Amino acid sequence: MKKLINAVEDIVTDSLVGVAAAHPDSLTVDLQNSVVLRADAPRTGKVGLVSGGGSGHEPMHSGYVGYGMLDAACCGQVFTSPVPDQMMAADKAVDGGAGVLHIVKNYTGDVMNFDMAAEMSAAETGTRIESVLVADDVAVQDSLFTAGRRGVGLTVLMEKILGAAAETGRDLDALLDLGAKVNDGGRSFGLALTSCVVPAAGQPTFELDEDEVELGIGIHGEPGRERAKLGTAAQVAEQIVEPILADLDFTGTPVIAMLNGMGGTPLIEQYLVWGEVSKVLSGKGVAIARTLVGNHITSLEMAGCSLTLLKADDDLLTLWDAPVNTPGLRWGC
Amino acid sequence: MKKLINAVEDIVTDSLVGVAAAHPDSLTVDLQNSVVLRADAPRTGKVGLVSGGGSGHEPMHSGYVGYGMLDAACCGQVFTSPVPDQMMAADKAVDGGAGVLHIVKNYTGDVMNFDMAAEMSAAETGTRIESVLVADDVAVQDSLFTAGRRGVGLTVLMEKILGAAAETGRDLDALLDLGAKVNDGGRSFGLALTSCVVPAAGQPTFELDEDEVELGIGIHGEPGRERAKLGTAAQVAEQIVEPILADLDFTGTPVIAMLNGMGGTPLIEQYLVWGEVSKVLSGKGVAIARTLVGNHITSLEMAGCSLTLLKADDDLLTLWDAPVNTPGLRWGC
Repeated sequence: MKKLINAVEDIVTDSLVGVAAAHPDSLTVDLQNSVVLRADAPRTGKVGLVSGGGSGHEPMHSGYVGYGMLDAACCGQVFTSPVPDQMMAADKAVDGGAGVLHIVKNYTGDVMNFDMAAEMSAAETGTRIESVLVADDVAVQDSLFTAGRRGVGLTVLMEKILGAAAETGRDLDALLDLGAKVNDGGRSFGLALTSCVVPAAGQPTFELDEDEVELGIGIHGEPGRERAKLGTAAQVAEQIVEPILADLDFTGTPVIAMLNGMGGTPLIEQYLVWGEVSKVLSGKGVAIARTLVGNHITSLEMAGCSLTLLKADDDLLTLWDAPVNTPGLRWGC
Repeated sequence: MKKLINAVEDIVTDSLVGVAAAHPDSLTVDLQNSVVLRADAPRTGKVGLVSGGGSGHEPMHSGYVGYGMLDAACCGQVFTSPVPDQMMAADKAVDGGAGVLHIVKNYTGDVMNFDMAAEMSAAETGTRIESVLVADDVAVQDSLFTAGRRGVGLTVLMEKILGAAAETGRDLDALLDLGAKVNDGGRSFGLALTSCVVPAAGQPTFELDEDEVELGIGIHGEPGRERAKLGTAAQVAEQIVEPILADLDFTGTPVIAMLNGMGGTPLIEQYLVWGEVSKVLSGKGVAIARTLVGNHITSLEMAGCSLTLLKADDDLLTLWDAPVNTPGLRWGC
């Protein structure tokens, strides 16, 4: 295992020390709880947005804390759910009197821990705490760590859109409706060219032959639908678009599209795949309103990419375009 | 070789098709010449900023085209200088009547081609065309492809700072002075954990043992100073800070610092290294005014990182903080 770390058990904390050092003006890091907070939290009268999950997917979630996106991110160990104590610390820190919303990726551990935290936080403080579930991966129905679909790329879009809505003063009920709409209208599918190496394991999670890809890969290296020969980028584009369009009709409404790098795939290849994907989508009558290309939800150094599509009406497009100021997404600020 | 491409000879063009598709409002891509342009080029009365180089370092340079940074980027084949025809097309497209400035990384091919282009463009159009050289890598004096120091991470800072200055109306002479100041006050050093695979070669440029790093790596995989055992991140931080501080005294003036990922190193590790680097710098009396962490000048999927430091007076800090709106760097817009 070849990584720029000190000791396996210190990776998350040591990395958060770097986050604090890099963003002293905009972020506060609670190292005790591995929680990254907006420096100006809590914001009075604004719903507090809390997300989090296993580390190793950066910039998600810690890189999405800031104006117009999350108020707090709870950082678990690599690919491991954070625990309720972390979430309770986050809930308390971001509670501005308008309630707190948890954005939870659909994995059994995350769901259970966020639920427990919500119950205990509410009992302790009297604050109303709700949650929005992200479950967008069309690759598999149930999975190693999931009942139902896995939460993957749509999480980035969810955090951006709910963050913008919370910033403009929408209340908790409105955010719950909006979150349900985003989840209903969003789908993702990914593929891997290589495995990553989880530090605590010290070796690749899976092996692929030199000419092989895993179609429908999970963001923790969970198996997808099938292994196939690696084709051209044009063929790959077909392979990732097809299962998404087979699952939901994306014609008739413009879409926000994210072509995401899994960590080890160079940007030149990501743009190349996006070029092919955009041709396939246009050929299928899908109108692309906004595009995001880059490493936004990663799996350590895994090579591969994923595609996320979200049906976007005028409200969602306005929220997407609204100012955001985080280390991982920034515009208009 | 496992890459998301169609054919090796089409990588750059195919990727630029994706760039055009992803940024239809802000960028124009001249596919014939592999030149990425601001959609609003030329800007009358503004010095046109042109850079470029071999592809494979994305987001540099194509990702730094836009308001407050470059007017055009000339994209060569992977790790291969663009040719004068490309630069002449860029010169013409960005010429707003106030002259054109080439920002050139110090590699023999790039310097020669940009020089030829400048001469021919000027002869053809009468426009004054000057160039700023970036030569910041303290690792080696001369190199495989270089007379003098290689141009590496400082290029990102140079493009940002000169871009901001051009945007606020500084003239060509002022930009030349500013460019010289940035180059005088900036230094970089990098290390690699793995080689990348240049598509045309199809195999790793070099081999490292499982516990070995290349100290002083070039951004094309050129050899550095020495091979060493991979230590802890704290030791790595010492290894990359020491040669920079040995070359130039960075005390007394605040610095802009960039901890850059080479492409295949996850963000969690980059922040972890930055945490260690910031401690080492503070211990040496270096005052960090601004920090940038992420993949900003890459070597395809190479694992590793580099550090760039730039002495920054108030003028440089103001230019650094000025609005920028490009795919690769964006704030204040």
